[in-house]
Amino acid sequence: MAFSVAVAGASGYAGGELLRLLAAHPEFRIDTVTAHSNAGQPLVQVQPHLRSLAHLTLVDTTPETLAGHDIVFLALPHGKSGELTAALDPSTLVVDCGADHRLTSEEDWAAFYGGDYFGAWAYGVPELIVGDGKQRDHLVGATRIAAPGCNASTVALSLAPGIKAGVIEATDIVSVLAVGPSGAGKALKTNLLAAEILGSANPYAVGGTHRHIPEIAQSLRGAGAETVSLSFTPVLVPMSRGILATSTARIVPGTPAEAVRAAWHDAYGDETFVHLLPEGDFPRTADVLGANTALIGLAIDEAAGRVVVVAAVDNLVKGTAGAAIQSANIAVGLPESTGLSVNGVAP
Amino acid sequence: MAFSVAVAGASGYAGGELLRLLAAHPEFRIDTVTAHSNAGQPLVQVQPHLRSLAHLTLVDTTPETLAGHDIVFLALPHGKSGELTAALDPSTLVVDCGADHRLTSEEDWAAFYGGDYFGAWAYGVPELIVGDGKQRDHLVGATRIAAPGCNASTVALSLAPGIKAGVIEATDIVSVLAVGPSGAGKALKTNLLAAEILGSANPYAVGGTHRHIPEIAQSLRGAGAETVSLSFTPVLVPMSRGILATSTARIVPGTPAEAVRAAWHDAYGDETFVHLLPEGDFPRTADVLGANTALIGLAIDEAAGRVVVVAAVDNLVKGTAGAAIQSANIAVGLPESTGLSVNGVAP
Amino acid sequence: MAFSVAVAGASGYAGGELLRLLAAHPEFRIDTVTAHSNAGQPLVQVQPHLRSLAHLTLVDTTPETLAGHDIVFLALPHGKSGELTAALDPSTLVVDCGADHRLTSEEDWAAFYGGDYFGAWAYGVPELIVGDGKQRDHLVGATRIAAPGCNASTVALSLAPGIKAGVIEATDIVSVLAVGPSGAGKALKTNLLAAEILGSANPYAVGGTHRHIPEIAQSLRGAGAETVSLSFTPVLVPMSRGILATSTARIVPGTPAEAVRAAWHDAYGDETFVHLLPEGDFPRTADVLGANTALIGLAIDEAAGRVVVVAAVDNLVKGTAGAAIQSANIAVGLPESTGLSVNGVAP
Amino acid sequence: MAFSVAVAGASGYAGGELLRLLAAHPEFRIDTVTAHSNAGQPLVQVQPHLRSLAHLTLVDTTPETLAGHDIVFLALPHGKSGELTAALDPSTLVVDCGADHRLTSEEDWAAFYGGDYFGAWAYGVPELIVGDGKQRDHLVGATRIAAPGCNASTVALSLAPGIKAGVIEATDIVSVLAVGPSGAGKALKTNLLAAEILGSANPYAVGGTHRHIPEIAQSLRGAGAETVSLSFTPVLVPMSRGILATSTARIVPGTPAEAVRAAWHDAYGDETFVHLLPEGDFPRTADVLGANTALIGLAIDEAAGRVVVVAAVDNLVKGTAGAAIQSANIAVGLPESTGLSVNGVAP
Repeated sequence: MAFSVAVAGASGYAGGELLRLLAAHPEFRIDTVTAHSNAGQPLVQVQPHLRSLAHLTLVDTTPETLAGHDIVFLALPHGKSGELTAALDPSTLVVDCGADHRLTSEEDWAAFYGGDYFGAWAYGVPELIVGDGKQRDHLVGATRIAAPGCNASTVALSLAPGIKAGVIEATDIVSVLAVGPSGAGKALKTNLLAAEILGSANPYAVGGTHRHIPEIAQSLRGAGAETVSLSFTPVLVPMSRGILATSTARIVPGTPAEAVRAAWHDAYGDETFVHLLPEGDFPRTADVLGANTALIGLAIDEAAGRVVVVAAVDNLVKGTAGAAIQSANIAVGLPESTGLSVNGVAP
Repeated sequence: MAFSVAVAGASGYAGGELLRLLAAHPEFRIDTVTAHSNAGQPLVQVQPHLRSLAHLTLVDTTPETLAGHDIVFLALPHGKSGELTAALDPSTLVVDCGADHRLTSEEDWAAFYGGDYFGAWAYGVPELIVGDGKQRDHLVGATRIAAPGCNASTVALSLAPGIKAGVIEATDIVSVLAVGPSGAGKALKTNLLAAEILGSANPYAVGGTHRHIPEIAQSLRGAGAETVSLSFTPVLVPMSRGILATSTARIVPGTPAEAVRAAWHDAYGDETFVHLLPEGDFPRTADVLGANTALIGLAIDEAAGRVVVVAAVDNLVKGTAGAAIQSANIAVGLPESTGLSVNGVAP
Repeated sequence: MAFSVAVAGASGYAGGELLRLLAAHPEFRIDTVTAHSNAGQPLVQVQPHLRSLAHLTLVDTTPETLAGHDIVFLALPHGKSGELTAALDPSTLVVDCGADHRLTSEEDWAAFYGGDYFGAWAYGVPELIVGDGKQRDHLVGATRIAAPGCNASTVALSLAPGIKAGVIEATDIVSVLAVGPSGAGKALKTNLLAAEILGSANPYAVGGTHRHIPEIAQSLRGAGAETVSLSFTPVLVPMSRGILATSTARIVPGTPAEAVRAAWHDAYGDETFVHLLPEGDFPRTADVLGANTALIGLAIDEAAGRVVVVAAVDNLVKGTAGAAIQSANIAVGLPESTGLSVNGVAP
Repeated sequence: MAFSVAVAGASGYAGGELLRLLAAHPEFRIDTVTAHSNAGQPLVQVQPHLRSLAHLTLVDTTPETLAGHDIVFLALPHGKSGELTAALDPSTLVVDCGADHRLTSEEDWAAFYGGDYFGAWAYGVPELIVGDGKQRDHLVGATRIAAPGCNASTVALSLAPGIKAGVIEATDIVSVLAVGPSGAGKALKTNLLAAEILGSANPYAVGGTHRHIPEIAQSLRGAGAETVSLSFTPVLVPMSRGILATSTARIVPGTPAEAVRAAWHDAYGDETFVHLLPEGDFPRTADVLGANTALIGLAIDEAAGRVVVVAAVDNLVKGTAGAAIQSANIAVGLPESTGLSVNGVAP
């Protein structure tokens, strides 16, 4: 028994990745794919890597084309899903890969995005510690889910265990991320041209301006932090996909090293898609390419008094489309890992 | 009137870059190039990009082949220069691109390198603030110079102005660097294979173990820090050259934003090779490729209470060979910028 | 009912890819993984992207460790499988990803490889035209299969339809391939270091010396060519995986354009894994990354009197491990596409 | 005594490279830099790698701003220079890096470009064999020079010696080029986005449609070919700069191997910027990055009856801006190599 699925924004990178994963999903059937300027074209013309979906044609993104499905995945530019989803049947499961429904604070929304605020939905990071449970508890039976920001979920997963366990401080976190340009989408901007990115490392949104900062703070508060202070710097590097997030936080003075490591081990020891690597091992983004996996390496720098958490994630999978499908699985009652791979494509 | 120059270790990446720069230097004449396993081969066979040096043949690296030059540049593996330089004429200018003569503390040497300690030489980062002056004051007339570690000088140049001016704290610095694999040399290691690096970001020496940490601390103490605490994480990314160092430090509470920025402006406003970019601009490594330039962008993150300093350097030029030549220019009394370019090769 | 599988050479790139694909195969169960110098280590230590196989440990590669399985996949260096397979049960299906059993001519073997010649096995390129059928006919029930050379099968699939149909000449073929370094394996060679490959295009085996040349000629003779003349040049480019083969052949004078195109359409119109793109479209290697797909674009250059066939293949999948598994599926009577994906991981 | 220089189109890649090279030129003084949409901005804002030119501001591209200089370099989109140059003083040296003045055949222009035809200028490839001399003979004293197409000059330099010497046939040439995306300029096109190029090889203009084909044919006719037939396929690969052109031509039957090699040796033995590598050596694009050098490797494939010529060029230097400056040097009577480097930036 398959669920009928529509994907809106199917011509972009996030939309394409949703479709790649959905094509391998045994219970989700792709019935409708929509786009804006590419409507009318065969999907495979725009997404030539999706050979198994050669029978699909892109249609316009409207409430009508999206109606009548069990699940609607939205991969639209920020600010485009709010109005659209208001027109969809409340019983339809809608999973939004955009930012419109992530922030619980209208003030944060106004400060970092602006425009109409449409309210927060269930946040699609199942393994994230929230209160005394995990975020997956809030996804069961949900009909509105906000898939996370790729950088935001990577950093939140990196640090939430230590905050929950009380072994690290949330008041002076520093995160620096090496990220691939696919996270920026297919937008035609000079700084995203290949000639600008190849052979170079390019920082952006330096100094506290990146839109994922309030989303991270929100997640860490959910894990128990009273106040969150975060210095966050993303750096574009020449790989199409991937996030390698190096996050550091001060260890609460007096905490034994074993207690630090135990916090992450306890949080993720039973997880399918989030792995703490053995002591001394650190992840590479190639190891999670195409996979719904977050690999985490952890070091305790006693001289600096800081834990260093390095997390590798495929921004389009665990960071976006995989998180969306994993969350949808939970929402509709399927095994959480249905249709998702834990193995990366390396080298 | 040209100076006679020998380059030892001419078959490696640092040696090759020394030669590329020396070939364009109007006062330095390359008379001798030495190597180990490649001795006997034409230089251009090993360094096929150095067409103007097609007349040179590699000879063995010995005290005899290096004798009789005005200047000897060493680009040898760590631990190989100590003995060799003991056999060179004390009046010869020797510039070592290895680590053997950088650390002033024998304890640091033992902790991070080990093996015989040969003592520190004048440190080859002319623009680095030291006490009430700059490091170039210590290079005038020097006959023994230690070129810096590429990561170390990048981070030290990033933060020294703020420490000297008393506007940032040195007690909780975090630096994360995106670096190209040429910094690791031509060593045959699996993790340096192209298939391992392409399309991936790979951290290494995580958690306080990198050998450049004591070198940075030494430089920052030279700039006035009493105690230095540094969390330092390098990440290999798929570009052959380049360092993009993101360093953050807490701003001393109560410091006005203008005072923070002024510290860097005052330190580097008159420098040829170190530039503070206008507010809101941040550097890319492509902009310094092949150049002896360090570009610095600075942001004040008021919410995080931290300054974020992003510095871009070509690890083989400003990070190594360019620093060596710039320092040699000073030592022998030439204009500091002789033979060095400030313009990068971009895109 | 699953088949018991062993993979020899599991620590290399081809071995790793076999395991990645086998891990997703519903009928093949990985029981044994073997290696040489890495024997004794957990598999996931050497192949950190294969998280679902964290329970496996590498054992030595011996006839004993490989015995007792239904299927043995070999991913060993050239020249290493001949002796080993002689010791395996004749009823076991053995699929060799090395070159030892590809060439039917001992003379070719001696000229391009040398050493002991062990004879040719059934060639693992199911879609390749052979005589009046296809190579898959020869794989049904086979117990010894030689997976193809990645470049060789790409070029053979590119041109065989035109030769079979008599619309192109085999006497003056030119193929130039952009290839990723994973095809060269994990060998520690200076020219495979990341710093040598990044930002550069490097030709190798220029002028008729590449070992895949006789393999291509053999395949094209199988498709009906009397004499094959091939100029073949591979160029290493900075992508971890992928082959983009541009092959040209003279069109038989007087052949109408539609007849040329029809030859490829007829040959591959019903294939799952080999696709002829619509007129005017040409493939990119990203579109087949991780997939068992060969995408083919075809142009007729009337001014030059040549057909230009551009084929994109993932060297580790359709070029090696995917071909091996597809062939094994056929040999044991499973649907040919079992466990294999047609969709690439892009961007 | 310096020549006063203006560069039009200074905000693009070719314009930026002209400026990088001119900044190191001892006899050319950059007085004016012009742009279209970026006019009014500081040059270094648009070209942040050109630190030594921080004093320059972009002005509008008009006959007035370009008037009054000794030399005007144009780096404008194709079709933009014709009208503009008509308004410049006939005694001013104008070097056009666009295509408008390269083709001597109006028919070719109409077939491959279209629009108004403005006639051909002296072609800026000094080392190219033309009749019984070289193209540099036609550049002495010229006031109108057309810098070459980067792919076109690379292929023409690769094959002209063999044609002139009568050792190869021009009637069935095949050239396949691995090229970096900077050759396509800063145009905002989806297929030039980093996410599309990274990790992939992408062919374009397949099947005889590339605009450089008539330019190559024109050059080879100049070297003595009666009829030229050329199959030409460029492939975008993930490096910012560089062309690696693999060109093959049939050897005239009966020609001894030494005579083939001698043709190239004789043609380029005395050249500063075009080098024939020793037998068995082949060039990499990294070896010419940033240099005005063309490196050529040559193999004779006796089995295929073809010569294989592999040429490496930096598309922005020897392919465009370096060729322009070298040609200008000749035109105004300076030593040909003034201000140009033969050494590449590698690794």
